[in-house]
Amino acid sequence: MTIYIINPNSSQHVTQGIDRAIDPMRAASPVPITARTLAEGPPGIETQAHVDGVVGPMLAHCAALENQASAFVVACFSDPGLAALREQSSRPVLGIAEAAVLTAMTLGQRFGILSILRRSIPRHMRYFGAMGVMDRLAGDEPLELGVLELADETRTFERLKTVGTSLRDGAGADVLILGCAGMTAFRSDLETQLGIPVVEPCQAATAMAIGRVALQQTR
Amino acid sequence: MTIYIINPNSSQHVTQGIDRAIDPMRAASPVPITARTLAEGPPGIETQAHVDGVVGPMLAHCAALENQASAFVVACFSDPGLAALREQSSRPVLGIAEAAVLTAMTLGQRFGILSILRRSIPRHMRYFGAMGVMDRLAGDEPLELGVLELADETRTFERLKTVGTSLRDGAGADVLILGCAGMTAFRSDLETQLGIPVVEPCQAATAMAIGRVALQQTR
Amino acid sequence: MTIYIINPNSSQHVTQGIDRAIDPMRAASPVPITARTLAEGPPGIETQAHVDGVVGPMLAHCAALENQASAFVVACFSDPGLAALREQSSRPVLGIAEAAVLTAMTLGQRFGILSILRRSIPRHMRYFGAMGVMDRLAGDEPLELGVLELADETRTFERLKTVGTSLRDGAGADVLILGCAGMTAFRSDLETQLGIPVVEPCQAATAMAIGRVALQQTR
Amino acid sequence: MTIYIINPNSSQHVTQGIDRAIDPMRAASPVPITARTLAEGPPGIETQAHVDGVVGPMLAHCAALENQASAFVVACFSDPGLAALREQSSRPVLGIAEAAVLTAMTLGQRFGILSILRRSIPRHMRYFGAMGVMDRLAGDEPLELGVLELADETRTFERLKTVGTSLRDGAGADVLILGCAGMTAFRSDLETQLGIPVVEPCQAATAMAIGRVALQQTR
Amino acid sequence: MTIYIINPNSSQHVTQGIDRAIDPMRAASPVPITARTLAEGPPGIETQAHVDGVVGPMLAHCAALENQASAFVVACFSDPGLAALREQSSRPVLGIAEAAVLTAMTLGQRFGILSILRRSIPRHMRYFGAMGVMDRLAGDEPLELGVLELADETRTFERLKTVGTSLRDGAGADVLILGCAGMTAFRSDLETQLGIPVVEPCQAATAMAIGRVALQQTR
Amino acid sequence: MTIYIINPNSSQHVTQGIDRAIDPMRAASPVPITARTLAEGPPGIETQAHVDGVVGPMLAHCAALENQASAFVVACFSDPGLAALREQSSRPVLGIAEAAVLTAMTLGQRFGILSILRRSIPRHMRYFGAMGVMDRLAGDEPLELGVLELADETRTFERLKTVGTSLRDGAGADVLILGCAGMTAFRSDLETQLGIPVVEPCQAATAMAIGRVALQQTR
Repeated sequence: MTIYIINPNSSQHVTQGIDRAIDPMRAASPVPITARTLAEGPPGIETQAHVDGVVGPMLAHCAALENQASAFVVACFSDPGLAALREQSSRPVLGIAEAAVLTAMTLGQRFGILSILRRSIPRHMRYFGAMGVMDRLAGDEPLELGVLELADETRTFERLKTVGTSLRDGAGADVLILGCAGMTAFRSDLETQLGIPVVEPCQAATAMAIGRVALQQTR
Repeated sequence: MTIYIINPNSSQHVTQGIDRAIDPMRAASPVPITARTLAEGPPGIETQAHVDGVVGPMLAHCAALENQASAFVVACFSDPGLAALREQSSRPVLGIAEAAVLTAMTLGQRFGILSILRRSIPRHMRYFGAMGVMDRLAGDEPLELGVLELADETRTFERLKTVGTSLRDGAGADVLILGCAGMTAFRSDLETQLGIPVVEPCQAATAMAIGRVALQQTR
Repeated sequence: MTIYIINPNSSQHVTQGIDRAIDPMRAASPVPITARTLAEGPPGIETQAHVDGVVGPMLAHCAALENQASAFVVACFSDPGLAALREQSSRPVLGIAEAAVLTAMTLGQRFGILSILRRSIPRHMRYFGAMGVMDRLAGDEPLELGVLELADETRTFERLKTVGTSLRDGAGADVLILGCAGMTAFRSDLETQLGIPVVEPCQAATAMAIGRVALQQTR
Repeated sequence: MTIYIINPNSSQHVTQGIDRAIDPMRAASPVPITARTLAEGPPGIETQAHVDGVVGPMLAHCAALENQASAFVVACFSDPGLAALREQSSRPVLGIAEAAVLTAMTLGQRFGILSILRRSIPRHMRYFGAMGVMDRLAGDEPLELGVLELADETRTFERLKTVGTSLRDGAGADVLILGCAGMTAFRSDLETQLGIPVVEPCQAATAMAIGRVALQQTR
Repeated sequence: MTIYIINPNSSQHVTQGIDRAIDPMRAASPVPITARTLAEGPPGIETQAHVDGVVGPMLAHCAALENQASAFVVACFSDPGLAALREQSSRPVLGIAEAAVLTAMTLGQRFGILSILRRSIPRHMRYFGAMGVMDRLAGDEPLELGVLELADETRTFERLKTVGTSLRDGAGADVLILGCAGMTAFRSDLETQLGIPVVEPCQAATAMAIGRVALQQTR
Repeated sequence: MTIYIINPNSSQHVTQGIDRAIDPMRAASPVPITARTLAEGPPGIETQAHVDGVVGPMLAHCAALENQASAFVVACFSDPGLAALREQSSRPVLGIAEAAVLTAMTLGQRFGILSILRRSIPRHMRYFGAMGVMDRLAGDEPLELGVLELADETRTFERLKTVGTSLRDGAGADVLILGCAGMTAFRSDLETQLGIPVVEPCQAATAMAIGRVALQQTR
């Protein structure tokens, strides 16, 4: 039995990053943890059409894994197909955005989101509204960095600090969430710099999945 | 130019019902109104997987109509693909659930939903949460009628009256919404019986679409 | 039968502006649209006493029009007497603030309001609270321009851009609403400049009224 | 200097009832308390048009009293003209609905409203929404008693007990509010019968007004 | 019989400040008002452990006063033990944070809090959430002044003006609340400078307590 | 290193029940799990004074365990001292009510609470309000069983079914939470009977704690 983390985009590179992010948790997990790439996904999930489009292939992908799955983690900050996968599977199913928010709700009173792009923020707002947690949201602010700029780690970290400071001091966040699956490397330093907890969503969801595997023992 | 109402399930029968529901509005529309069936859809949209699964084909279907479209109406009470179609199209895009709720918000202070099945209610709740209108919701109660029972019009109407009365007197609704695309025939009689407005969602969305076509003249 | 747009202040100049704002929509309306001035109203509606004070005369004005009315639009951003007129009339009744908000809710996830004066904002907040849509509100920011400054179109547009930019980038609005009945002329340019939809409330309400006239055909 | 309680309907009988309700508080008030009838008001305030219609005469009535007023209390459960009177007067201004709700918020966690008529409930909901206190509302249920039935005290009290029990046990209210200005006589017995606090709105508002008169000493 | 104001920290200096703050209200109170120091409290209440820790001694302190108490006021902006004291005592019990918020809700539509320290803000947010008034909150911003700086009155007032201006113009507050029991001296000048009402919480709670003593006469 | 579950009442019997409830999870935990009794606590936590009163001793108890603690779980459905313990400890701290709610939010859209006593419901409401999750709450209904009746397992289970059915069918809950630490034995059967997930709060919190221990590996 295995915890499957599904990267719903087709980028192996992203899947490898997720794998590195959760690697230290393997020692504490009662079951193996495997990160998988959804070959049918787009290279990156940037639009609502991408979000909706990966659901079908992801459901098929997970159906094939159902028998050996301890739990599923959907590893995209839009939590594509989370409700559908929960209807399909009898296993615990976690989404990284939902898990990050629920985790942040135990670490602070108002969470701030560091999003890559401004255009994903309305999608986040719809989701936090559906989750019924708008009163816990301090703000959601974009890095607005292009692909080339994101490749420059120094620049990305500077921007994370700037936007994180704005969320903390301007919007009143006392806990931050990295709003995509690819910024793990910066989590710890950002937390140190800003002095408030920073949640990496893949790690938060995997932690909840490990807990759920334990919880299943009581069923 | 035409207002296209897209029935995202593959049932011609449902499309014909929608067509009948909005037929009286054609005389007041500045453009033709055409109801279309999504051939690639399932016979009925009952699960979250169905909702997510029709988005891709529906986007393709609408892309092909874009140039001759005045507006699009997505005619399923789960508003599948509404956000994605809005990102894709430059035309006004309405969903029947959203339009029914917004219309009900001008006809009463607390709306009640008459759903077919209990299992769609959590999906509705997520959606009303995403819309940010939970304080306007009085309740959402299921008819819990099977296919055979729904075919019996007398029985269906009795059940609509019972559940509608519960929503009005128990939950405090002062306006009701028919929670699927196929109950048009009962709207008027139910309104008369219960003494509060009853909104049929396909009609509500088509009305808003007609208004939007007029609004586009100011652009 | 006619759609009556009631300007509840006594300024003919404002009524003419409303008439111009909705003129392009006439071609798409199934019935004539007439903008009327409430002679008994104050020159401008600036205080809560003004808002409450126009209700009586407006109800009388509309009662006299009831038989030839297809629908009523109350054309002041405080929606004076909307609830009372709905109780009195059997016709569709729309208010420009409510209609603008409901329209904005289909064009973006968080709306921002461009108000003329800071002192009307608490009144707006009470109203959005009554509508139950506070979670969709990004912000409401004042132009704080006096009468003379408003007469200077260049200056007014500069200020609209500044405040609109603040609502978009600071408050996170992805759709804007012009918070009074007299800024139609700037709508299109502001939308172009800011890159997000801008809703003019008289047009939005008239569009909904046209839709409602069509919807009445199904009764 | 005097605390003026304004009954905005023209019924002397109601004003006398209010006077009796607050009479025991006079001994504890630093200033006299006078209940006044708005001669221009309707015999009873039952519709939104009544609510809006009394604002003008009430503002005039209060303007004439401004110089000798310590505070104003608007004594109708729709709080007509409260916002307008606050803009006009430099004195503390309380409304009985608002004051009853704020008082109930210190006596329990979820308040229930005992309304006379079902049709006033949407008006209450708009108001509680504007107050931003919907999460504290357990429910608002109508007695649905006509004038003759209300004259029968035994019957009215039976109905108050029935609806109060429904609010307590069905809706989860742990504090109740009498939703009109004329049920003072039942407050104490109802509280004893149901075992949870019952707030009479005229008394609650007068208590807050007395407090505000004291608070003005610090200005 | 006496209104007891309980300062739950052990600082006599703070109790004396509270006494001065409410002194002008004594002339308008039907009963004496006495401010008392909780000897068992910490010198200042700065952490959640302090808040929870004073509850036991405060309950004992108040139990001993129950027979001669007209009402109790808990005079710390975290309202420690408010719910517990309400369960224990049969007298009216007010907390200064709750009373300040309820008072501000009658003076403006969106209140802003001037907190001493950033770290108390999450505690305030939990409390306003429990009160169900988040939609009325404009913002809560810290002075971030240390003990020495607070001793410098000129500097403190400058900071109050700066943060108050930010709450009014940035966050949209139209009423402010001093978020601790020790800033009474600045209330009036700050109100004059900023042009919006400023609520001092000890005074607001004492005013409500005076009203409640009057209300008890009707029991 | 150990996960410590603190039963803040002094009943060994309750602690043993908690130990049994989480025993199956030990095999899946990376560290030992120990349930401890707070000797200084009352036999049962029934009032707000009990809740506040255990905080001090619990903080001392946990401070002594800090060095060997992997995580703390506060095992009382009022989550006493949760915020204070989070301020004191550098370890992950979970409360069983909070964890049960967060877990339920991943298993259904609207949760219902099965409380023992009606009088604890206002306390729960304050807490869910502080958590900002009121829109996810379907209802909170009491068993209203005395100690003797609770000892009768058949009767308790009958009552759980009755109240659970009311929450599911009347209030619209699609997931239930057992609102105290002592009903583990009924969880599985109740879930089977009602056909919706039932969350046992000690298990839910322990599951989250196990996840957090894993998450700490990434720090």
